Amino acid sequence: MTCEETQRRERPEFERIFHPGNIAIIGVSARGSMFGSGILNALRAIGFEGGIYPVNPKGGEYNGLKIYASVDEIPAAIDFAIIAVPAEFVPAALEECRRNNVAGAEILSAGFSEADTPRGRELEDEVKRIAARGIRVVGPNCFGIYCPASGLTLLPGPDLSRQSGPVAFISQSGGMSIDFAHIGKWMGIRFSKVISFGNGADLRETELLRYLGDDPETRVIAMYIEGVQDGREFFEALREVAAKKPVIINKGGLSQAGRRAVASHTASMGGSRVIWESLISQAGAVQVGDLWELAHTCLAFSMLPPRVYQGISVAGGGGALGVNACDAAEQFDFTLPVFEADIREAIMKVLPKPGSSAHNPIDAANPFVHPQAYREVFLNAARDERVDAQILIQLFHHYKSLSLGMGVPVKDITPYRELADVVSGVVASTGKPIMLVLPNFKQGIDSLDIEEVMRDARSVFLDRGIPVFDDLNNALRVLNHVSGYYSRCSERSG
Amino acid sequence: MTCEETQRRERPEFERIFHPGNIAIIGVSARGSMFGSGILNALRAIGFEGGIYPVNPKGGEYNGLKIYASVDEIPAAIDFAIIAVPAEFVPAALEECRRNNVAGAEILSAGFSEADTPRGRELEDEVKRIAARGIRVVGPNCFGIYCPASGLTLLPGPDLSRQSGPVAFISQSGGMSIDFAHIGKWMGIRFSKVISFGNGADLRETELLRYLGDDPETRVIAMYIEGVQDGREFFEALREVAAKKPVIINKGGLSQAGRRAVASHTASMGGSRVIWESLISQAGAVQVGDLWELAHTCLAFSMLPPRVYQGISVAGGGGALGVNACDAAEQFDFTLPVFEADIREAIMKVLPKPGSSAHNPIDAANPFVHPQAYREVFLNAARDERVDAQILIQLFHHYKSLSLGMGVPVKDITPYRELADVVSGVVASTGKPIMLVLPNFKQGIDSLDIEEVMRDARSVFLDRGIPVFDDLNNALRVLNHVSGYYSRCSERSG
Repeated sequence: MTCEETQRRERPEFERIFHPGNIAIIGVSARGSMFGSGILNALRAIGFEGGIYPVNPKGGEYNGLKIYASVDEIPAAIDFAIIAVPAEFVPAALEECRRNNVAGAEILSAGFSEADTPRGRELEDEVKRIAARGIRVVGPNCFGIYCPASGLTLLPGPDLSRQSGPVAFISQSGGMSIDFAHIGKWMGIRFSKVISFGNGADLRETELLRYLGDDPETRVIAMYIEGVQDGREFFEALREVAAKKPVIINKGGLSQAGRRAVASHTASMGGSRVIWESLISQAGAVQVGDLWELAHTCLAFSMLPPRVYQGISVAGGGGALGVNACDAAEQFDFTLPVFEADIREAIMKVLPKPGSSAHNPIDAANPFVHPQAYREVFLNAARDERVDAQILIQLFHHYKSLSLGMGVPVKDITPYRELADVVSGVVASTGKPIMLVLPNFKQGIDSLDIEEVMRDARSVFLDRGIPVFDDLNNALRVLNHVSGYYSRCSERSG
Repeated sequence: MTCEETQRRERPEFERIFHPGNIAIIGVSARGSMFGSGILNALRAIGFEGGIYPVNPKGGEYNGLKIYASVDEIPAAIDFAIIAVPAEFVPAALEECRRNNVAGAEILSAGFSEADTPRGRELEDEVKRIAARGIRVVGPNCFGIYCPASGLTLLPGPDLSRQSGPVAFISQSGGMSIDFAHIGKWMGIRFSKVISFGNGADLRETELLRYLGDDPETRVIAMYIEGVQDGREFFEALREVAAKKPVIINKGGLSQAGRRAVASHTASMGGSRVIWESLISQAGAVQVGDLWELAHTCLAFSMLPPRVYQGISVAGGGGALGVNACDAAEQFDFTLPVFEADIREAIMKVLPKPGSSAHNPIDAANPFVHPQAYREVFLNAARDERVDAQILIQLFHHYKSLSLGMGVPVKDITPYRELADVVSGVVASTGKPIMLVLPNFKQGIDSLDIEEVMRDARSVFLDRGIPVFDDLNNALRVLNHVSGYYSRCSERSG
């Protein structure tokens, strides 16, 4: 029996939840006016291949599908249910699912404990009681589950990617989960599972973390949490899982006002900044400050070789970039080894003069240096044993000025495909990763053409396994996270 | 005599440099192969209205203009010269300009002290000696001057904005100057003058700072400096000028490796981080960490009322935004006053339920809340005396999902024009500024339509005097800079 098969036997209910054969959507109206109708449309748009069974006591038909009056009447075995009816009707719907042996349900509806009313709390307690009798619950007050492999999607995610990948995201906030899934699509983060658990009446941070820690589809775990239910248990799980794979945490609500907002948003307890930061660090997890840093960090962990990085080289055209590179390197604890004369001379041979410099950072003097010249730059810089990773900064927007002067489309003169081939070739032959930084200083409405070039360039580089960032600081900040994590790993094992 | 007239009489040479009637471009070849030809094209593209006189000993004609063999032969009085010939030929060209009573010259050529060769230093000394005999020099090793009012443009800036405004930028780095000018164009920063002074053989940080301190066209001064020539004099000037108008400084090369790069980039002395930070702060100037923060800060200083800000309100659709808002507010020293019941009730009246909350931050529950509802939100929040400024976070990219579902272009359903009218109307009637935050989580190549909407929305809001940021942290970081500066001002005067 393979490891994966063991997983499936041990947790059949999670398999049925994330990869359901048949799902029920409770709260679809024939006129399409209910919330559940939007979810049904989203599931069809993203291409969910399983059976979809809409439910509404009024019956009828929606988009060619028969609406069943209740789950009892559905003629198929339902694995997973999506509940999107007003809070008052949720417990009855959930109980019906449980009775029909549904493995799990996501409750998208709001109006529970987060509403801070006696009735809201009562309804959530009912949900908990039903869950305890044998059905797993995601939510209430959540955006649900996104699983690219099965085609489950978040609310409202008709256009999320169907490409699977190594990153899982557990989010207490629905808004963050959908935002992160959208960012991942173009930034190159591929997901195993995204789970927005909202109030977390049943499934929440600790159990989901342990599940993903054992999940063979998941190599990197990202979390947005506002508060945890049982701190001791959570940090124990965190320590165990972080020893197996990187866990990256964005903790919201660390300020005083933030704790107040957490209370009304997901009805859980916050905690002080100092305590959180020290506990996360002691557990060996990676702490980040916001959604963007979370995304950049996931990208780096999923694309860079798992090792410790100390020395880097930075190349780009335009002097201030070099100075900024030095400042950024020091800020994030990297060294920029000064190359020996033979490497310097070999690099200078291919760079324009005057204005260039090969001391590291490598100032290429202008933004139009040819990809084949960069090949020599990278191959030579990689010869320095102290260089663990290379950074290339490309200012593609300068090609816009050039294209205006030449009267040709900017797409035709920006050599990003050739550069991507060069870069991936060098990475393959040197074994040292290269990170691409693509800042865009021309974001006017008259520069959508260069925006298109940069977006296409990004995907071309990502396809070749080269992570792309919009800013050097962001690239080095996350390289530091990667390096720090694997340095702690080697301390533990060494 | 008005203040402005006094200025012109006192510094006629600066008037002739920034607003020249006739310019010479030294280094234009008939075949267009020389550097100066590109500059000539850029000046024509941006629409410089003065006379342009190309110079090259070989003579000939370029783009319909006669090329003069020397400056001596030009039949008009030249105010300003652009020198773009190899370093060896620069002193002779400069001397010729001086002899012909040219007020100033920008030397774009590299190969001087920054080359770190005896010959390079010798050539720069020659330039200094000629300048001392009566011609002002910008450079060498620089990108020149950009002045939207006169149509002078940086290298290579054919597509910079011709709109003038209150912000001046002095930059030791050419790359930074052109990047900043491009950013300003779409971000809404309007310039009086941008000066890239490179090696600063003659004009450099201190004198330019004093000039701009007295310049009636300039209300806000931004600087990128790598090192200063005379620290004592510079900080004295900085203190004097910062007492009159905000001076925002990005100091590059504060790391060890950075100082090394500074030496090869512009051949000036760096200095330690601690000393710089304390001196800038003592002088009452604003220090920022990078180019983007410099840009956001200039935008805020040029668009927000000059005052101290303490309490803010934050409104947006999607719960996590609220929690993040609290965290960000605390990080940047703002309070989020909790509204009294009457304000809360008035706000809740217009927000969708359940899921919304009006405690401040104001969680609008979904991203599709109507502009007219936001009018009520803002008007009511502004009634709280503790609120000094309001922030609106809009997630326009969600309209993309909506447009896919509805089958209509996203532009047709995103109500940004109406929202901009509402927002500017509220600002006018309450006297409290509103800052717009427009994050974009959908940056894929299939989302260029929403990118276009967001870029158009940005310009529509900017036209109505509403500053726009892409991230809440960035907005609050710079509001804190503005508030800190005016709080120090009032301490001094009080």
